Amino acid sequence: MKVGIVGYGVIGRRAADAVEAQPDMELAGVLKHTRNYGVGLAGERGHRLFSTDGSFGEGSIEDLLAEVDVVVDSTPGGVGMRNKEEYYLPGSVPAVFQGGEAPEVGVSFNALANYEDALNRKYVRVVSCNTTALARLLYILDDGWGVEDAYVVLIRRAADPNEDRKGPVNAILPGNGLSHHARDLQEVLPVPVRTKAYKVPTTLMHMQDISLRLYGQPGREELVDALLREPRILVVPSSEGLNSTARLRDYARELRFRGDIYENVVYDSIDLDGRVYITQAVHQEAIVVPEIIDALRAMQGIRKEESLELTNRTLGVGALRAYTR
Amino acid sequence: MKVGIVGYGVIGRRAADAVEAQPDMELAGVLKHTRNYGVGLAGERGHRLFSTDGSFGEGSIEDLLAEVDVVVDSTPGGVGMRNKEEYYLPGSVPAVFQGGEAPEVGVSFNALANYEDALNRKYVRVVSCNTTALARLLYILDDGWGVEDAYVVLIRRAADPNEDRKGPVNAILPGNGLSHHARDLQEVLPVPVRTKAYKVPTTLMHMQDISLRLYGQPGREELVDALLREPRILVVPSSEGLNSTARLRDYARELRFRGDIYENVVYDSIDLDGRVYITQAVHQEAIVVPEIIDALRAMQGIRKEESLELTNRTLGVGALRAYTR
Repeated sequence: MKVGIVGYGVIGRRAADAVEAQPDMELAGVLKHTRNYGVGLAGERGHRLFSTDGSFGEGSIEDLLAEVDVVVDSTPGGVGMRNKEEYYLPGSVPAVFQGGEAPEVGVSFNALANYEDALNRKYVRVVSCNTTALARLLYILDDGWGVEDAYVVLIRRAADPNEDRKGPVNAILPGNGLSHHARDLQEVLPVPVRTKAYKVPTTLMHMQDISLRLYGQPGREELVDALLREPRILVVPSSEGLNSTARLRDYARELRFRGDIYENVVYDSIDLDGRVYITQAVHQEAIVVPEIIDALRAMQGIRKEESLELTNRTLGVGALRAYTR
Repeated sequence: MKVGIVGYGVIGRRAADAVEAQPDMELAGVLKHTRNYGVGLAGERGHRLFSTDGSFGEGSIEDLLAEVDVVVDSTPGGVGMRNKEEYYLPGSVPAVFQGGEAPEVGVSFNALANYEDALNRKYVRVVSCNTTALARLLYILDDGWGVEDAYVVLIRRAADPNEDRKGPVNAILPGNGLSHHARDLQEVLPVPVRTKAYKVPTTLMHMQDISLRLYGQPGREELVDALLREPRILVVPSSEGLNSTARLRDYARELRFRGDIYENVVYDSIDLDGRVYITQAVHQEAIVVPEIIDALRAMQGIRKEESLELTNRTLGVGALRAYTR
């Protein structure tokens, strides 16, 4: 499978590396729209570089598309939809989009929750980082005990580490009432959920506070065991010094290139009193990367178990273990 | 009523000003433990200054206590309890303590929720800023419709504006499971509530996300009207540019000395779908000040309505109006 990456930013760079790590995929090249330090980065990493209008790199977007079986569009929100209309549809090129696009761009996708919906589809949209993390966690809980209702407070990072013009620097920004994340989640997992979002001055990770009622009544250990069985969930002890997003990323930086955390990071301090109270952290730059790889395989008709096993093994998903019984 | 302020920090300075604004109170003096710029501040503000050991100012803590009818102890958490044992009990001096003290220091107090519990008591503890804001809001909702259960996510400011050694600078710190705020709230208002707390890198205000179920079923307007009737609740429109803690404080700085916000700031974007979803911001430096004044009056046996009306009028509580029907 020859894959082109359109948009070589925070997600595109990671998608390019992840594609190169797959035995059944080949990276055809990466496309940048704007000439900046990403051009040098692509060169240093040995990627073939293309530009939208061909003004730099080996050629234009049409040149790249002519060489590929499928595209990962990792452009800023809204650009993917325009690219689809201008390039992918006319050229009949399948594409994976990001969660910043409107749901109409393709079938919404999470590898755990609804892999089968993307089988043999041409246009697939990997839901956003926050939604991906929620979908994974709630899929496991819904599968095990049935989610009766869930309420999620998203404490969102204000900007990515390379976004030096965004804020806030010193403020908390509440959203205007309930947030769109619930609707987005329901595209991939139809559970009753409400979400509310707050933006805070940090760049490292999102934090999610989940309180929910399950139809079944698992014990705490049973619940933690279900999470420990899923490689895309990393359970961490509250008691061993990982109790901040700074420490989580510090831990990951020692063990993974870029300190990428592909997994949901769930704290083991789960409370139960009829409702269940869970805290998880989300590395917004990395969490969707395994799902992008799985989306590419689903589009080829490859089975879920086969793809997830291969993605997890090649990316090392589930290799970080922080919690021991 | 001659009042002494022990501890002239973030709360002590505000309590001193608030006492001076009361027609039935007189500020005897303020006590500082450590010699720093607060000494100059007290001088500039014209307060008589005392120090613990008498090494600076007009005298020692014993000298101050000999002149007063009652003390507001606004020392750091834990110090108040030691002061009670070392000075207030032996000298038989009544005292108001802050929420940082253990509940055993005195009867826990919120002016709306349990004013009567402090009538003619000698030692009263004004609950913390977050608990004060919760007590006010939940008291009104419980009074109107009965709180069946409530869940609160506290997004806490990391440090006060003058705390230049505290962090985090760039991280989110989750608490270890459910937080103590629920127990603290139940000292003043026995409603079924769970709380969870996260610390984020900002200094301006706390943010609280409250989701709850009421026994009654108010409409949105009915609920907002109940909040608008309470002077210690400021309802702000989500739509008119006040949608961050930075903008709230910017607004208050134009209208109040120090930009102090004594009121809960509740966003009008309240959602209802069986549960009720509310967001409120809390100015941690100022919100307990009206409650400190009311606690002083309750200890003298003065009626609730009389004290609240006088406190609100003298401090201008409820004078900020941001929401118009």
